[in-house]
Parts: sequence; C-alpha cells; structure tokens
Amino acid sequence: MIKNRSIITIDDISDDDLNEILTAADEMDRSLKSKKKINILDSRVMCTLFYEPSTRTRLSFESAMHRLGGAVITMADVKTSSVAKGETLADTIRMADAYSDIIVIRHPLEGAARLASRFTSKPVINAGDGSGQHPTQTIMDLYTIKKEIGRLDGLNVVLLGDLKYGRTVHSLILALSKFNANIKLISPPSLRIPEYLINRVKNKKSLEILDTMDGNISDADVLYVTRIQKERFTDPNEYQSLIGSYSINNSVMETMKKTSIIMHPLPRVDEIAPEVDQDPRAAYFRQAANGVPVRMAIVAKVLGGI
Amino acid sequence: MIKNRSIITIDDISDDDLNEILTAADEMDRSLKSKKKINILDSRVMCTLFYEPSTRTRLSFESAMHRLGGAVITMADVKTSSVAKGETLADTIRMADAYSDIIVIRHPLEGAARLASRFTSKPVINAGDGSGQHPTQTIMDLYTIKKEIGRLDGLNVVLLGDLKYGRTVHSLILALSKFNANIKLISPPSLRIPEYLINRVKNKKSLEILDTMDGNISDADVLYVTRIQKERFTDPNEYQSLIGSYSINNSVMETMKKTSIIMHPLPRVDEIAPEVDQDPRAAYFRQAANGVPVRMAIVAKVLGGI
Amino acid sequence: MIKNRSIITIDDISDDDLNEILTAADEMDRSLKSKKKINILDSRVMCTLFYEPSTRTRLSFESAMHRLGGAVITMADVKTSSVAKGETLADTIRMADAYSDIIVIRHPLEGAARLASRFTSKPVINAGDGSGQHPTQTIMDLYTIKKEIGRLDGLNVVLLGDLKYGRTVHSLILALSKFNANIKLISPPSLRIPEYLINRVKNKKSLEILDTMDGNISDADVLYVTRIQKERFTDPNEYQSLIGSYSINNSVMETMKKTSIIMHPLPRVDEIAPEVDQDPRAAYFRQAANGVPVRMAIVAKVLGGI
Repeated sequence: MIKNRSIITIDDISDDDLNEILTAADEMDRSLKSKKKINILDSRVMCTLFYEPSTRTRLSFESAMHRLGGAVITMADVKTSSVAKGETLADTIRMADAYSDIIVIRHPLEGAARLASRFTSKPVINAGDGSGQHPTQTIMDLYTIKKEIGRLDGLNVVLLGDLKYGRTVHSLILALSKFNANIKLISPPSLRIPEYLINRVKNKKSLEILDTMDGNISDADVLYVTRIQKERFTDPNEYQSLIGSYSINNSVMETMKKTSIIMHPLPRVDEIAPEVDQDPRAAYFRQAANGVPVRMAIVAKVLGGI
Repeated sequence: MIKNRSIITIDDISDDDLNEILTAADEMDRSLKSKKKINILDSRVMCTLFYEPSTRTRLSFESAMHRLGGAVITMADVKTSSVAKGETLADTIRMADAYSDIIVIRHPLEGAARLASRFTSKPVINAGDGSGQHPTQTIMDLYTIKKEIGRLDGLNVVLLGDLKYGRTVHSLILALSKFNANIKLISPPSLRIPEYLINRVKNKKSLEILDTMDGNISDADVLYVTRIQKERFTDPNEYQSLIGSYSINNSVMETMKKTSIIMHPLPRVDEIAPEVDQDPRAAYFRQAANGVPVRMAIVAKVLGGI
Repeated sequence: MIKNRSIITIDDISDDDLNEILTAADEMDRSLKSKKKINILDSRVMCTLFYEPSTRTRLSFESAMHRLGGAVITMADVKTSSVAKGETLADTIRMADAYSDIIVIRHPLEGAARLASRFTSKPVINAGDGSGQHPTQTIMDLYTIKKEIGRLDGLNVVLLGDLKYGRTVHSLILALSKFNANIKLISPPSLRIPEYLINRVKNKKSLEILDTMDGNISDADVLYVTRIQKERFTDPNEYQSLIGSYSINNSVMETMKKTSIIMHPLPRVDEIAPEVDQDPRAAYFRQAANGVPVRMAIVAKVLGGI
C-alpha cells in the first residue's frame, strides 16, 4: 500500500506495490483510450516543484493529474521564485505542503527529494534528484517492458550509453535484477556504471560490463539507450569520436532480434537515428506515452483515489 | 467538418466550416455572457507549445479550454525545456501527442506547424508560425467584422502598417478576398505585401497597393492596423520618421466613416494613440475578447464536443 | 459586501467585510480539512499577472482558485510576454479582462493595482504593488492572529525588521490600530517606518518607534518579523553587522511570553533561525497555510460564489 506514502526511491515500492501499480496503470490506459472521465481526484491539487527543467516529466505528471480530474500548481522556473530570494528547500516544501495534496519534486542534487519529504506530511514523489533516482521513470520502464514483451522475468537486457550519470538506468538495474534479468552494461570507459550500484545487485553473475555493442546485443530482448551528454566531456572531440560507437541506426537494428525492443528515456539527441523511429521495435515513444497511465496509477494510489 | 482535423492555414477551413464556426462562436459568446457552465471538454487536455512568446494568443486558448471544462499543460518557455537539450520538433510533438488531446503550437519558423502535424495523430492548431499563418486569428477577425458590421460580404477594407511580416494580415487578405472585399494595402515601401500573396488573390482588381493613408481611408468599413516593429529597421531613425504616417489618432478618426471600425491584432505600441480607445469605432479590444468564444468554438468542434 | 469589487488596499475592506471574510475563511478551512469538494467556482477563470515574482502569493491564489473548482491562466514571466513587446499596463489588463473573471496582479510599482482596476470591469485583487499594499496578506495576518490568539482586540504587537520597504507591515499597522493594538516598531534606523504611515494612525500614543529588541518584546502577544533585504544596503558589511540584532533565535524566544506567537510573511532568510521552527509559538508556517482559506473566502465572495 503506497497510500499517503512518499516515493523517493524504487525501494519504496514493494513487489506487491509494483504489481498493483502495473495493474492499475493498465486500467488507466484503457480508460484513457475509451476517453472515459476519471474524476477521482476532483478538487485535489498537485504541486510540481522543478528546480531544474524536465519538460517531459513535468508535463506527464501534470497531464496525469488533469486526467484524474485534479488541478496543478507549478513552480517550474526557479530563477523567478522564492528560491531566488534565498529560501531553503525546507521552507519551499512547507509552502507546497500548505497549498497542495501531493508534491512532485525535481532537483539537481542527489538526496533532495528524501530531504524534502522530511518537511511535509504530504506525499512527495521524486521526479529525479541529480544522479540519484527517478522511481516513477523506472516503474514506467517496467510497465513498458511488460506491455511490449509480455513478461518481466528472465529477460536479456542491454543498457547502453551513459551509465555513470544516467539516473534512469540506476534504478532500472536494481529493479531488473529482482526479475532475474541478464544485464549487459555497455558504455564508454569514462561513463561506466558506479561500483556502489554493482555492489547492490545480489546476483553479480547476471551483470556484464562491456565497452562495445559488437556481438553483445544480438540476443537482447530489451536495448535501453541513454543520452550521452556532450557536457560530460572536457574535450568536445572526445564526445564526437565516441558518440558513433554508442548510437543506434538501422544497421545496428539488423543485428537485433525481431522480438526485441529499443527504449530511451528521452529526450534523445544523437543516440538513436531518426530512421529507427519507423521500426516497430522502436518502443521509446510508446514508453514516453506510458508515463501518463503509470503516473495516474501512482498518484491515484498515493492520494487514496483508488 | 473540422472534427479531428488540424488547422494549419485558413485554407484548412472550408466556407461551410467557417459558417459553422462563426455560428458556434456566437453560441459560446452567449453562454459566456450568461455564465453558463459548458463542461463539454471535461477531462480533456490541451497542450500549448510556445516556441516564442505570445501571451495574448496563449492565454486566450487556455481560457477557451478552461471555459469548456478542459485542462491545459503548457511549455511556454523553450529555454527551460527539452528543446534546450537539443530535442527536435518532431520528438517534442510526439511528447505532446502522448500527453494531450489537442496541440496548440506557436513557432518562429514558417511551416513549423504543418511539419508538427505530420508527427501526431492529434489535431494541431497553428497559433502562428513565423511570418506564415495564424488561422484562428483570421477567423476571430472575420467573426469580429461580422459582429461589428453585420456582414462579411463586399466590404471596403484597409490594411495598414507592416504588411510584409505581419502574419495576421496575410491570412486575412486571402479570406476577405473570398468575400468580395475591396482591399487597400497601405504600408511603408519596405514593408509592402509580398508578391506571392497578391498572386494568390483571384480578383486582383480588388487590391490596391498604396503608400499613404491620405484620401484612402474615408470610405473604409474596416481599418485594420498592424504593429510596425522597430526591429525591422536597421536605422532606428527610419522607424521614428515613418511611424507617425502609419499611426491612428483622433484626427485620423475624424476622416473616417461613422460606421467604420478600427481593428488591431494587439499588442499595439505606437500605431494607435490611446485617445482613440474611447471612440466607439475602436473595435480592437472587443476583437481580442472575441478570441475566447471563437477559440472555444474551434477547439470544441475539433475535439468533437459540439 | 465585496461582491464584484476590487480589493486594492485594506481600506477597501470595511469592518463588516473583514468579519465576513474571517468567518468564511474559517468555513473554507474546515472544508479543506474534511477534503470536501467545493465546486462553487466551476468554469470560472482567474488571471494571475505577476510583473515580479512572488511564488508564495501566486501559488496560494492559484491553489485557492483550484480548491473552489475554478481554473487559472497566468502571466508569471513578464520577460517572455506582451509586456516585453512594449505593451502598456492598461492594454495588458484589458486582455486579462477579456479572458478571465477575476484578475490578481503583482507589480513592482506602487499604485499599479489601482491603475489596473480602472481599465477593467472585472474585480482586481492587489497582490502587492511595490512598497504599497498587499491587502490579502493583511487579512491573512489578521486571520492568523485571531486563530492563534483567539481575538484581535487590544493586543501587544511588535513589528520587527524592515519597516520602511516591508509592504506587508504597512497595511498591518493600519489594520491593527483599528483593533486598539499597542504597537512597537523596531527597526534599524535606516529602515524605519515612513512618516506618512504614522500620520495615518489615529491614536499615535499606541505607536512606539524603537531601535532594539532589548526589553521591548517580553510583553508581546505577536512578534511580526520581516525580511531585511541585503540589497537595501550599499555596504554589505552594514547588512552583516545589523542582521544579528534583528534576528530571532531560541535565546530571544526565551525572553518572550509562553502565549505569544512569531509571524513572518516569508520567505525568510536570516531573520529567524531554523531552530525556532520547532517552537510551538512559531506561527509563520501556519500563517502561510492560512493564505489558502483566506484567499478562497475573498475570491469566492468577490465572484459571488458565497
């Protein structure tokens, strides 16, 4: 039961919670498709506090709240806010507490969402804190895999790209390892997965750390691509020389299974060529669209609407 | 029938569509005045994507959606958005597609709205693309003329100011020429109407291209004034020397017919003196207010609410 | 009766109005706590025009409108708005008039809200204009005092900090003096209360102008602290040397009555130490939370919903 609870990391979600959320998300998805009115959160207010921009995350939360009949107040531009006047996170959270029923926070610093949850009795949803966690993205990813592949258990999963800073993959690795996935972690050496994360995975034999896609993706059920940010490299030429080896195009797709899917948390820049979009295995736009029913399920459950 | 259709240029609106919209806008206007609740778009979501600011257009669309009972999610500041991370228009549109039922887009580049509509199955409303079109503004202008003058057919219309870049006048000229208007186009030589637009008007005899208001506005039923932007001139003195000749004040008003009206897409700066605001022929604020019922009619029809 | 009326200064609120608002706010507060739906402003639209940022004020108005079932359109970032194109306040207000039922305005210049109300037939709520007034903050402060202390009459009130520019205290002094308060005004000499305000208080004997807290706060029922802005000082060292003498910490709290309360309009920076937050007399977060029921009461009354 996640009713009245904050969701800061994927560890806040038990296996039962996850199952319930995935089932509820399916129902939300059906309701959305039938254009049924779902006014279960009528007159409830969500406050979205975005200390750094993330249009996709913010808009999908706001859309989810509206689809549930609720309303949204938002502080999306920190530069023109009380934060700019020197207000602490604690005081801003207390403001959100007073004005809303549920707080969605995005913050550049790891641990900010947990800290935030200490200053309010209202549920806090972590929508990404630095290179920390982004649990609703993880749930959305699991929902997508289950919907696309038909199951979550025992899959071959390849995670590709920036595995050091890529927030979304950290939670995903922990979640997938519970489902007995065989996970290949392919990244440039400078963007390799942090040691502490590997240590948190129980079955270490299920993880392979690799530098190249060559020969390593043909048996993948899921290829999860992440954005390699130019800003991570002090030398822009290094980025240019690297990006090609970690990008997906139609030639790469040809080496993959017919039943595989390609995922990406979006926005993408150079990691997936537009030509791949037409491939039925390109699941990243469907993945993004799943953000609405999954967040509807989470918000409705947290606020006791379902 | 515009149900489920994108509205990118005024050509997307047939004569029948236009009549239906104008009639529906009248009904919406009556409902607004009687403060009747119109919850026909309850639980539907509009996404407003503004790649350049246009407060009036954005707020009137948002007000229209709210008046219909719907909700709005908005990306109004591109600098703090996924676009700033290098996302393509196509990918941003796919995001809006996933999170909403109707997409309203404003973009600095001509053709952007048409391009956008190719990446979504949801209806796209062009809220202005560069010096291209702004069809709902045109419908709102036609609605205003019909409401103020009582008819659309066979009017003497003067368009004044920046006719080169002034987006709103381009669509309006094409629409008015269908209604057998006699159109005078008065502008500084450097801001004259583009040739290609003149070529699109069937009855070229109905168009007169002029440099001065003197003697040319006394028979006008409608004087449509547009903003001359200082930024269009490399020499600011040129702007200063010009602006007076293309501005409306009470002296100019004295030379006009008692039954004429003055329109302006707003915001205005120096083109219409504040003293004119008191004149009953000053229709520009009523014109702006018409944005709500007209956009309500369009959005409700596109979403199948009416 | 404030129905259909603008609220620009606290003088627009008669004693009867104030009583009605405080009673209605109590009812709103009870409804909020019981999570009752209050859809009395369904399909009504509020326009928030913030010419300078004030997150707390804006979000509490927006939350209040949503809690009443209404919708909000907002121009929160003037830099990306029609104002940036040179539009006058009058024209922007006429836009808000056309698109909404009630206008909430925040502006850096004193008198802006009054001016705004002249260009619209819709009610205007002043949400702070320069160093002028912020009447809903004052009502919220009075509501807080009444709720916390049990009465408004004959209290010992200390106002501390920036009494020169501190907008909220100006209205509060005028309001409290009506309730026969004994008021001590403690500030650095350079931030003393303006003469013209003292002249507006009838019973001048009830006011004491002081430089120091020492020996002056032990009998206070209410200690109202305001933010001293670093920017007010040309010499930053002057700020540093001053701020300590006008800040509240646990040692200061020890000198105060058990039944007193500490208020602050927030955001706070250095004026109240975080250690004070745990003290039950720290009423400033409860005060901020009162913004919602008080603004609900005001908006509902102005729009004729109750």
